[in-house]
Amino acid sequence: MKTIKYGLSAISLAIGIAASGFSISTLANEPTLSKADYEQAKLQYFQRCAGCHGTLRKGATGKSLEPEETLKKGQTRLEKIIAYGTEGGMNNFDDLFTKEEIANLATFIQMTPPVPPEMSLEQMRSHTKEYVAPKDYPSKPLHGLNWENFFVVIERDAGKAAIIDGDTKKIVTHIDTGYAVHVIKGTEHHKVDHAKDVGRFWYTIGRDGKVNKIDLWQTPDKMLVAETKMAYDARDIAVSGDGKYVIAGGYWPAHFVIMDAVTLNPLKVVSTRGYNTKGEFINEARVAAIYTAPNESSFIVAVKETGQMLQVDYSDLDNLTITTIASAEFLHDGFFDPSGRYFQIAANASNKMVVVDTKERKLEAMIDVESLPHPGPGANWVDKKCGPVAGTTHLGVGLVSVWGNDPIGHPDQAWKLCYEVETDGAGVFIRTHETSQYVWADQLKHPEPEIQQSVQVFDKNTHEIVKTIRVTEEEGKAALHMEFNDDGSEVWVSVWNRKDARNPTGEIVVYDAKTLKEKTRIKGLTTPTGKFNVFNRANHKT
Amino acid sequence: MKTIKYGLSAISLAIGIAASGFSISTLANEPTLSKADYEQAKLQYFQRCAGCHGTLRKGATGKSLEPEETLKKGQTRLEKIIAYGTEGGMNNFDDLFTKEEIANLATFIQMTPPVPPEMSLEQMRSHTKEYVAPKDYPSKPLHGLNWENFFVVIERDAGKAAIIDGDTKKIVTHIDTGYAVHVIKGTEHHKVDHAKDVGRFWYTIGRDGKVNKIDLWQTPDKMLVAETKMAYDARDIAVSGDGKYVIAGGYWPAHFVIMDAVTLNPLKVVSTRGYNTKGEFINEARVAAIYTAPNESSFIVAVKETGQMLQVDYSDLDNLTITTIASAEFLHDGFFDPSGRYFQIAANASNKMVVVDTKERKLEAMIDVESLPHPGPGANWVDKKCGPVAGTTHLGVGLVSVWGNDPIGHPDQAWKLCYEVETDGAGVFIRTHETSQYVWADQLKHPEPEIQQSVQVFDKNTHEIVKTIRVTEEEGKAALHMEFNDDGSEVWVSVWNRKDARNPTGEIVVYDAKTLKEKTRIKGLTTPTGKFNVFNRANHKT
Repeated sequence: MKTIKYGLSAISLAIGIAASGFSISTLANEPTLSKADYEQAKLQYFQRCAGCHGTLRKGATGKSLEPEETLKKGQTRLEKIIAYGTEGGMNNFDDLFTKEEIANLATFIQMTPPVPPEMSLEQMRSHTKEYVAPKDYPSKPLHGLNWENFFVVIERDAGKAAIIDGDTKKIVTHIDTGYAVHVIKGTEHHKVDHAKDVGRFWYTIGRDGKVNKIDLWQTPDKMLVAETKMAYDARDIAVSGDGKYVIAGGYWPAHFVIMDAVTLNPLKVVSTRGYNTKGEFINEARVAAIYTAPNESSFIVAVKETGQMLQVDYSDLDNLTITTIASAEFLHDGFFDPSGRYFQIAANASNKMVVVDTKERKLEAMIDVESLPHPGPGANWVDKKCGPVAGTTHLGVGLVSVWGNDPIGHPDQAWKLCYEVETDGAGVFIRTHETSQYVWADQLKHPEPEIQQSVQVFDKNTHEIVKTIRVTEEEGKAALHMEFNDDGSEVWVSVWNRKDARNPTGEIVVYDAKTLKEKTRIKGLTTPTGKFNVFNRANHKT
Repeated sequence: MKTIKYGLSAISLAIGIAASGFSISTLANEPTLSKADYEQAKLQYFQRCAGCHGTLRKGATGKSLEPEETLKKGQTRLEKIIAYGTEGGMNNFDDLFTKEEIANLATFIQMTPPVPPEMSLEQMRSHTKEYVAPKDYPSKPLHGLNWENFFVVIERDAGKAAIIDGDTKKIVTHIDTGYAVHVIKGTEHHKVDHAKDVGRFWYTIGRDGKVNKIDLWQTPDKMLVAETKMAYDARDIAVSGDGKYVIAGGYWPAHFVIMDAVTLNPLKVVSTRGYNTKGEFINEARVAAIYTAPNESSFIVAVKETGQMLQVDYSDLDNLTITTIASAEFLHDGFFDPSGRYFQIAANASNKMVVVDTKERKLEAMIDVESLPHPGPGANWVDKKCGPVAGTTHLGVGLVSVWGNDPIGHPDQAWKLCYEVETDGAGVFIRTHETSQYVWADQLKHPEPEIQQSVQVFDKNTHEIVKTIRVTEEEGKAALHMEFNDDGSEVWVSVWNRKDARNPTGEIVVYDAKTLKEKTRIKGLTTPTGKFNVFNRANHKT
């Protein structure tokens, strides 16, 4: 065995472990990289691979990439997999990385994974910044725009959020955020608690753990009002029903952090490392999803690798009560039913939708669906036969699965599959609106451009696909993620400029929700991804 | 840097980490040991040092012994400290270890600490053994003895528990247990739940994580009825109020395990790794103490290094609700007040007694006491001025601190110091009984033999020491731990045969609780330590 000599940054990253007397070593026959190549491959691995394969490379949505696995495959095979993807769901990366970068990544994943350090509450607090003092927050909107029909849009690879006026379709501003923001959430209406000015404040969480607070009442140049950092790698965020707390979940360190929603000052950190449903200890037990329960003083925290759903009661942070609900691995993303009582979340390695009862704080049901369910923001609607239903797309198959979700009004249909709709390609996002007769599904995971660039629309009554919409035909672009405007008359679809991800050549295409015809294109956006309409999100129009 | 070549067992111990690609390495200038010496030093460190200094040697009750600290001190100074102890509370070990063993230990603690592996639920289950099938459990006691006045006695260095008949003072049997059992607990009366045959079943927890179940109704040769193992290093255990579950806490891995109290089959494991009250991540977050709340369907789990008290609701293991009550580091041992609502526990690095309200599931108070409070089983009684009070001895100073503990009847005195009693030496255990006018305190931590061999008794009314009792005068022996018999007429004191710890040359000295005069000596015991009277423990006569 030998120690990596060039791994200066690897060593600084390993501080947490080094303090216990451990060092990063490579196995005798491991390949090596120059320091510069190692650092770049490490960064690219973190940005593009760690999400599915894990920082420690033990695997989750993706396969284990520990040296004992990768050394068996060898350099050539690994390069091919990275370049062209696999039928198992691995993306192709030949359009994002150069041949040399792919070769270095293939080498990097045959080497011992570097272990990143811990992050203390004190370290987080050192990142907290105030851009606008709370005493200077305006008492009414400072612009004449209809802010409740704003769309808050993730510009993924720019590290920005765009604010778009849903009435005029004009970009109000681009706001600096963390890297590759995964989710943005605002204050929402709550059954018990009551946030002030619901929908006004929005919170972004970057892949790099950076948290930014946006005030939609400010003039466009001052909308970014506060910032902090709660992890090195993170995915989700939520605001408490009373608007007092923000919670964000870390991939690394594996923990969640509760912050003061006014200042973003981190108040409480709770580790999610622990045991999976089989009783095996998981060090990299990442927080996949966080939501605020609409009827309870609780956050719902989904821990991916352990299959544990945490219901975190935020009414007393010093005496913090958490119910750990054992479900199935690997938890990913979810959404509430229309009553706000039941949380429906994908356990995508188990091909199940897990349902948690937030009133009783217990597992309500597990529904068998198909390969790698992924509902994104989800969709709830009413079916003629089954009553209230919800649906999910799948990462592994072109299929929308629909189940009953009204155990009180329709107990016979509840938590059972009602019907399935085949689509042309595996997708990531599904969406509808209470005013619409249609359900929209994207096909982002399909390898063929013409399918990846199309979304499909099916009818709630006939369960038949009524239209396949080619959102873009440009090379290197893909269509994803639908969001309705405030009154449900429009559907906004993102177009990723995947191949030109550093420039604002992405767009949002706006469709008439009834005729399904294109109305307009909003240009000048960099990899637009998730979009959040203020009114719909604040009022749970899911 | 170089890898330890001889560390075969170190490597097997490090499996959990090795799987992530890490290896045990030593720093360039670290001293080394032969394989045989390394293994013996590692075992001796585990048995005698890890309790205070931690398996990873980050320190807790004792100082950090990581190489960056120990290399500064050097071989000679370390040998002296191990041999003769320090004024800071470190014991002398020259009576336990040879000079060569001390030299090897001094070298071992300058080397990189080996990291032990994890333990899964499946691994625990592979250790579960049935000695007597539950269907063969007797329906009434199979011996004619007064089992409710039995004493269950830890024979620390023999890895046994002795059952002693409190009426006849005869040893009924010696039962094989884990190594150096720390605590033995039986079923107790509970306000809400109701265990069958309260006081009949007893559960031991070994330092090696072995759990044994004892049935006091069996014939002496069959009293050991079941066994399992829930950790590599452990300290405390408890039985649920309904008698259905046993819970034990691990030092390594840092977790607690809930078992079926009938079969000892492990059902649920929960990690205690997490953040301390300052928001710093603690990997070795050890479970110091576990108790059953007498009025609630809850276990109380004290996590030493994080200063977090966990109130674990055992009414639904699949949807497990835990309230994490932030208090102070490092939590050690505690006891309930007479009402059963308040749990009083030492935070010995903070010199505080922490009080948890198990009804409201929150921190009730923190009381400043002196250096290293350690109440052991604790003592509650009634003071003329302050009303109901409780007291603790201290590891760091010869002092009993007494505080009011009746916030409802005596709110002005509650959780405030009522008075202090100076003793001749720092001690580990305090004890009294509702029928007695005296409180007993040992002085085990005092370096001088004549004080270490004496216990002191003070009067509840005058607050004055009324008698110093020299329990033994034999060289290498020490007096510790008091327990009353069922009607409070006797006090039993243990005599450790520290220098001859492998032979049954220890004893228990029985005193008349009123006259304070010696009645008899029970001989033939190996390092007798904690003693648990069935009736008193089952009925919370603390």
